[in-house]
Amino acid sequence: MNLILLDRGEVDEYGQATLSGPRAAHLRSVLRVESGRTVRVGLVDGPYGTATVRAADDRRVTLSCVFEAQTPPRPPVDLLLALPRPKVMRRLWAQIAAVGVGRIILTNAERVERDYFDTHLLAAEQYRPLLIEGLQQARDTRLPLASVHRQFKILIEDHLDGLCGAGLRLMADPGAATRLGGPLTKRERVLLAIGPEGGWNDYERALLVKHGFDAVGMGSRTLRSDTACIALLTLAHHALTRPAPEGGERS
Amino acid sequence: MNLILLDRGEVDEYGQATLSGPRAAHLRSVLRVESGRTVRVGLVDGPYGTATVRAADDRRVTLSCVFEAQTPPRPPVDLLLALPRPKVMRRLWAQIAAVGVGRIILTNAERVERDYFDTHLLAAEQYRPLLIEGLQQARDTRLPLASVHRQFKILIEDHLDGLCGAGLRLMADPGAATRLGGPLTKRERVLLAIGPEGGWNDYERALLVKHGFDAVGMGSRTLRSDTACIALLTLAHHALTRPAPEGGERS
Repeated sequence: MNLILLDRGEVDEYGQATLSGPRAAHLRSVLRVESGRTVRVGLVDGPYGTATVRAADDRRVTLSCVFEAQTPPRPPVDLLLALPRPKVMRRLWAQIAAVGVGRIILTNAERVERDYFDTHLLAAEQYRPLLIEGLQQARDTRLPLASVHRQFKILIEDHLDGLCGAGLRLMADPGAATRLGGPLTKRERVLLAIGPEGGWNDYERALLVKHGFDAVGMGSRTLRSDTACIALLTLAHHALTRPAPEGGERS
Repeated sequence: MNLILLDRGEVDEYGQATLSGPRAAHLRSVLRVESGRTVRVGLVDGPYGTATVRAADDRRVTLSCVFEAQTPPRPPVDLLLALPRPKVMRRLWAQIAAVGVGRIILTNAERVERDYFDTHLLAAEQYRPLLIEGLQQARDTRLPLASVHRQFKILIEDHLDGLCGAGLRLMADPGAATRLGGPLTKRERVLLAIGPEGGWNDYERALLVKHGFDAVGMGSRTLRSDTACIALLTLAHHALTRPAPEGGERS
């Protein structure tokens, strides 16, 4: 936990928040805070800030917070992901929030097992704490938007433009000759589509291409969808940064 | 399983191999092979090949294999990793083998819990099947070399040069100004060091710098070590590929 995230409702009009539960336990047991110590905080979907510990006992920690004026931008990469099996999805929520994603669109596909949609992990009250865990790890405040779609065709034809607008659309494809990671000409949002184990079927692939997705690969290795999510989100973020001279990039 | 990997001892002098267990089950249940069908195979630490199914019943599949002359090169990225907790390490073996790593050097560090070394997952007979799983996913034949070191100082001062030779040495550091992912001047092996949760301590960091490690970051986000392994290995592989004009890279 590299940032303590607070909901707006937890902070009163004087900037004071009293925490119990895991965040208070982390402040006490890991950071070993005492009265007077300052810690980094953030508001969910709001600005970063600094908090001074006013009181800490076995159960609660009281913070006095000052927040910055600006809310940081949402990460510029969105993810369209064929729903993986629940065990994988459970791990992915926090990991993709940590790597950085603006919006997560989970979809059905022919090669997605139907019962994957029965998991409680697709309920916001279940996945929100996992996303928050990833944000607190990565020091981000912007909670990824998430939606679940059981009908691929209706999602792509009727809803995707409304969800994602006019950004660059890329479709991960192990066989693609164009590789993700080179600097992107359009420095705007990127929507990255990652298929199920076994890949999109021909119909799904054609529908994605028809709706503006370009196939991109990452070399000859075929990755499981959870590993591919992390690898491709990382490369998309990298591709959106400014290229630099041979030898490295200065941020 | 995108490639069926065979040990040399499983293939007789006529190129014939009879499989039972998970690989045979995969051939029958997922690939639904019948006699006469060809499948991609590889020899562990050897060449790729093609196998023709000679017989398949409920328990066994017999293959007749022809292998290429050349063994593919070992992935050019090595990993020096502070041992993560067993639950994380269990997942990582297959994932890092899939992303591609030539050698895995697991080490102690101040912030590694001592009991992490007690796990059976550090025994070759335990982790080898996990590495093979990752190779079969990613279609690679080169089994990563792995070693476990309980004494950081002795590893870095006395053993590292023998293990890794003269490649480029990079140390992941969230605070570093130089970012990993730009094209690397030296197109040779890269050894990537990833610290424990909480990072290397000052002594460990200084010892790494003294032994040739340059600090590199990947932006402002701090990742958990399992996520960081996948992200940074991906960026190191990307950095070792030839840069291309704006818009993408042709492989």
